[in-house]
Amino acid sequence: MKVKPLGNRLLIKPVIEEKKTEGGIVLPDTAKEKPMRAEVVAIGNIDDDVEINVGDHVIFAKYSGTEIKVDDEDYILIDVDDILAKYED
Amino acid sequence: MKVKPLGNRLLIKPVIEEKKTEGGIVLPDTAKEKPMRAEVVAIGNIDDDVEINVGDHVIFAKYSGTEIKVDDEDYILIDVDDILAKYED
Amino acid sequence: MKVKPLGNRLLIKPVIEEKKTEGGIVLPDTAKEKPMRAEVVAIGNIDDDVEINVGDHVIFAKYSGTEIKVDDEDYILIDVDDILAKYED
Amino acid sequence: MKVKPLGNRLLIKPVIEEKKTEGGIVLPDTAKEKPMRAEVVAIGNIDDDVEINVGDHVIFAKYSGTEIKVDDEDYILIDVDDILAKYED
Amino acid sequence: MKVKPLGNRLLIKPVIEEKKTEGGIVLPDTAKEKPMRAEVVAIGNIDDDVEINVGDHVIFAKYSGTEIKVDDEDYILIDVDDILAKYED
Amino acid sequence: MKVKPLGNRLLIKPVIEEKKTEGGIVLPDTAKEKPMRAEVVAIGNIDDDVEINVGDHVIFAKYSGTEIKVDDEDYILIDVDDILAKYED
Amino acid sequence: MKVKPLGNRLLIKPVIEEKKTEGGIVLPDTAKEKPMRAEVVAIGNIDDDVEINVGDHVIFAKYSGTEIKVDDEDYILIDVDDILAKYED
Repeated sequence: MKVKPLGNRLLIKPVIEEKKTEGGIVLPDTAKEKPMRAEVVAIGNIDDDVEINVGDHVIFAKYSGTEIKVDDEDYILIDVDDILAKYED
Repeated sequence: MKVKPLGNRLLIKPVIEEKKTEGGIVLPDTAKEKPMRAEVVAIGNIDDDVEINVGDHVIFAKYSGTEIKVDDEDYILIDVDDILAKYED
Repeated sequence: MKVKPLGNRLLIKPVIEEKKTEGGIVLPDTAKEKPMRAEVVAIGNIDDDVEINVGDHVIFAKYSGTEIKVDDEDYILIDVDDILAKYED
Repeated sequence: MKVKPLGNRLLIKPVIEEKKTEGGIVLPDTAKEKPMRAEVVAIGNIDDDVEINVGDHVIFAKYSGTEIKVDDEDYILIDVDDILAKYED
Repeated sequence: MKVKPLGNRLLIKPVIEEKKTEGGIVLPDTAKEKPMRAEVVAIGNIDDDVEINVGDHVIFAKYSGTEIKVDDEDYILIDVDDILAKYED
Repeated sequence: MKVKPLGNRLLIKPVIEEKKTEGGIVLPDTAKEKPMRAEVVAIGNIDDDVEINVGDHVIFAKYSGTEIKVDDEDYILIDVDDILAKYED
Repeated sequence: MKVKPLGNRLLIKPVIEEKKTEGGIVLPDTAKEKPMRAEVVAIGNIDDDVEINVGDHVIFAKYSGTEIKVDDEDYILIDVDDILAKYED
């Protein structure tokens, strides 16, 4: 399924981070708190002065956007105003 | 009955998706959660820069719009701002 | 009594629809849920680009407007923004 | 006492309507529900395109405005936006 | 102490009205309900088209403004928008 | 520590007034109700038409602003819109 | 990890202040109340007339912004409007 965001919205794919406990056990991030990092998958009709491109890694505001399933995977449709920052590892 | 949306509104027809349980039983989507996919049936007086046409498949914000019955079928009158994205299978 | 709406308001008269139960008993619509259909009776000072005329049949947002009695019949004074669509049978 | 409304406000005097019960007993309207009809007594600095004059009979939004006593009679100071319609008997 | 209101504010002094009970006992108005009448004492930087002058008697919206003590007497600092009307006895 | 307010904000220092009880005991004002008087200590980037200068005594809206400690003394960072009036003793 | 704030946002690093109890025991500030002081680490696309630079020490509004972890240290992504003042020790 192909999704095209409308208006000033983006389609983003949350990043699931692995994290080790002190004893070394790996816990998926969802076991602790909602992840706030994502990769930009598709971009709607946003202002030119917002420097966001497909493939960028972004930090988004918790509880913002609408979760949708695309081909059984979780994505979020989100306002560009709820994208707080870009980041690089 | 013929319905013509006014202002920046659309008339959309929710898509009822079938879904199989792991055991193979088919459950209509309404048995799990409110569907958020629809087909555009009629368009009011919306801005020209919004690329939505009759027949498009769209994802809309949960709990938005007003449900109406037209010839005993369920439709939704919804603001164009509550249409989050278009999609193609 | 003659009523002239002010501002961007309309005077509408709700349509009471009859509806048969499966056994054939006729129930007035008010026995089930608030009707949302009405006929436009008078128009205030609305924008020219809104295509509504006296006599049009319209669908309006539930719980919107103010109910008034005119010559012992029920009418609603309503903002034009709460008129969702026009319809024809 | 003479009252001059300021800004886009009016001074209106609620109309107390008599109403007979089925048995013929006359009940003042206040015994049933808050009246929403009034006569315009004084006008502040309202827009020229609002067609309201002193002496007009108007229907106003319930619970709007501020009740005041003038020479022991009840009046309401109300925004012109809360005047829904004019009427003639 | 001399008080100069800032912005679109006024300094007003509430009027305490005496009122007789049916038996002839005089009750200060504060024993019944919050007074809403005041005299204008000082004026900030308000729009020229608002016709309010020092010494005017005004009616103001209940619960609006901020009560202050000036030389042990009660005054109110209030937005000009909360002044509903002027009056003359 | 030197504090420079940003935007349309001021740094003010609340005035603690002494007040005698009828028996002559001096009570600091904070024992009765939150003081609303202050001296202006620093000014951010406010509009030129607001006549406030460092050293002015002002009355501010209760519960507005953010309390901060500067060198162990209490100050308030406050929007200029929450400064209601200036005063002179 | 490198973080670039988007829109009118900043990335700031809260300052943890040590504070001695009367008995001389040093308590980190987080043991008493949320710190409101921070150092500016990165700046998004803010207005030119806001005089904030990387390295500035700022006071920010309590409970504002979004806490994030960068390389296991705590940072806050915050609107420039929630930065109340700059300070120098």
